[in-house]
Amino acid sequence: MTDGFLDEAALAELDTPAVVIDIDRVDARIAAMAATMRARGVALRPHAKTHKSLEIARRQVAAGAVGLTVATIGEAEVFADGGIDDLFIGYPLIAIGPKAERLRRLADRCTLTIGIDSVTGIDAIADAFHGRRGAAPAVVIEVDVGGARTGVRPDGVLALARAAEACGLSVRGVFTHAGHGYGGRPERVAAALDEVTGLTAGAESLWRAGIEAPLVSAGSTPTAVLSARDAVTEERPGTYVFGDRQQAWLAEQALDDTALLVATTVVSRGPADGFVVDAGAKVLAKDVAPYLAGYGTVVGWPDAVIERVNDHHGVVTLPAGSSRPAIGAIVWIAPNHVCPVVNLVDEYVVARGGRIVDRWPVDARGRNG
Amino acid sequence: MTDGFLDEAALAELDTPAVVIDIDRVDARIAAMAATMRARGVALRPHAKTHKSLEIARRQVAAGAVGLTVATIGEAEVFADGGIDDLFIGYPLIAIGPKAERLRRLADRCTLTIGIDSVTGIDAIADAFHGRRGAAPAVVIEVDVGGARTGVRPDGVLALARAAEACGLSVRGVFTHAGHGYGGRPERVAAALDEVTGLTAGAESLWRAGIEAPLVSAGSTPTAVLSARDAVTEERPGTYVFGDRQQAWLAEQALDDTALLVATTVVSRGPADGFVVDAGAKVLAKDVAPYLAGYGTVVGWPDAVIERVNDHHGVVTLPAGSSRPAIGAIVWIAPNHVCPVVNLVDEYVVARGGRIVDRWPVDARGRNG
Repeated sequence: MTDGFLDEAALAELDTPAVVIDIDRVDARIAAMAATMRARGVALRPHAKTHKSLEIARRQVAAGAVGLTVATIGEAEVFADGGIDDLFIGYPLIAIGPKAERLRRLADRCTLTIGIDSVTGIDAIADAFHGRRGAAPAVVIEVDVGGARTGVRPDGVLALARAAEACGLSVRGVFTHAGHGYGGRPERVAAALDEVTGLTAGAESLWRAGIEAPLVSAGSTPTAVLSARDAVTEERPGTYVFGDRQQAWLAEQALDDTALLVATTVVSRGPADGFVVDAGAKVLAKDVAPYLAGYGTVVGWPDAVIERVNDHHGVVTLPAGSSRPAIGAIVWIAPNHVCPVVNLVDEYVVARGGRIVDRWPVDARGRNG
Repeated sequence: MTDGFLDEAALAELDTPAVVIDIDRVDARIAAMAATMRARGVALRPHAKTHKSLEIARRQVAAGAVGLTVATIGEAEVFADGGIDDLFIGYPLIAIGPKAERLRRLADRCTLTIGIDSVTGIDAIADAFHGRRGAAPAVVIEVDVGGARTGVRPDGVLALARAAEACGLSVRGVFTHAGHGYGGRPERVAAALDEVTGLTAGAESLWRAGIEAPLVSAGSTPTAVLSARDAVTEERPGTYVFGDRQQAWLAEQALDDTALLVATTVVSRGPADGFVVDAGAKVLAKDVAPYLAGYGTVVGWPDAVIERVNDHHGVVTLPAGSSRPAIGAIVWIAPNHVCPVVNLVDEYVVARGGRIVDRWPVDARGRNG
């Protein structure tokens, strides 16, 4: 057994770069999050943009997820076709042009809920279902609780809800993504509080106005465990299914239970102390975090820094005089952020007990619109 | 006609985010580079990792390219199957494990040349073709002329060439990629000089030793036009086929002839002055350059800065009080670096004269190993 997921015999049949998941670790992560949410009485609707996989989605649902969150109509189409029948597009969708017809077809084949944060978004949905309002998906209003991206501030929720109802749309509730929880460890804790505060304010403005909108949905892996209070009825974490370097750091955990690693071959000595691997930006992506050096962790090489990634090269440095892996050796990398990595490859190599036991397609890869 | 590539009628049928190419601009770029190299008597072997498209590769060959450069066996397989019969894998390939058999099959169906920068790389090729050395691809030795990534310094070229010949491999010559030419405008000029100096030193060490190795191959879009001197027999630019924001800045050109843009929809007002588009890191990628603000240029909005990209969101800021595009409007983005953008999508929307005239697959998308 190496420091990665495969034994020597399995490594001999591995082509690199490869995205490898340890399915026992994936299952353990799915079970743990499901158990946590069940214990708190909070519904779990995992974000599937992380894994984009029907096989993994089915495992999440089997473990008790009420449905999935997705980012795009394209992802929703893949999961609906694969039999997941309750989908939330957690994005301020503007359903115009070809998206209007796609949305109508989609709503016919699953229970669909859609995020909105503008009157334009509401009007587009209403127009798309003009003449058959009963078939229109319910909407959920996005609240900006401090992430400063999309969503309206809590005091803007009621006006949007009234606009939606005036168009004949059903308002299911409010949702947020506290993206600022990725900023650091204190930011993570603060963001979890912001979620509860902002969502509660938005939801209460609806309830006070007599609008029955029970859904109060928070969503991000850094805050999911922290913010699951009485105020929240649903959580939508995504990255938890694999974990990654950024999540481990935020949660002050080791990488021991990270379920996805990139296997890569050392192809060159590189320019100085260090080495070059065949995993570049086209498999590791280029996400960085202010609190982490480089583009990932090289497993078993704690002093290594992936200083540079070009399309097909990862340039790794080591302290002067260190030993280094041989050219031709396979090394394993825990990427900073796992979501864009999965979106770069067509399949998972599925490992269990050091063996390759399967290959799963990344079913919704590239379905980003 | 908008500031992008499509007229209003065509925009109505466009789904976003979309990678759109203007085929007249692509053809003009292909013709211009071919004419420049022809006039200088330098062979042109474009790097196909940029476009990953058979349709575009055929246009490059029809315009006079001697063959293609690729980064991986996977790309070479796609182009060989598509009828391109002269391929150079410009990467220090380590042909072990499943790659050995793939390389053998590939060498049977095209004229193949392979980059090496280590004895391990040489041994792997020799082992893969053990018993049928005549079928082995010729090798080209990678020279580090200052890019500080892969390759050996010029004084290490001869030893590698002797090692290759001792294994029965044919040495075709030397190649380099002066990646440091992306560092800025003075760096671009210096890198073009470095190419000539370093390649000449490496090649001459072979010639003095009586090794007939005529190929002297330089390659990068920033330096291709500058470094095409008598000393260089081949150029391998890739990005020139579309251009991008980074290339335009380095060459002190406007974006007027950039042939690829990302069409994206404004989905939200965003948190302050600005707007949010549906092109995030999963279509724009995350390449940045020290001399350019943000993740791309918003065409027609010169004061806009794409400050942040998350997976599915591009957060754009404008000076306080500026007008901004309406939610639902389509805006066009010139990405910083076009290669990773193409690798994120399955097809090009092909435009001519403001109309959508075709859709071409990104044939080698994801073939990064």
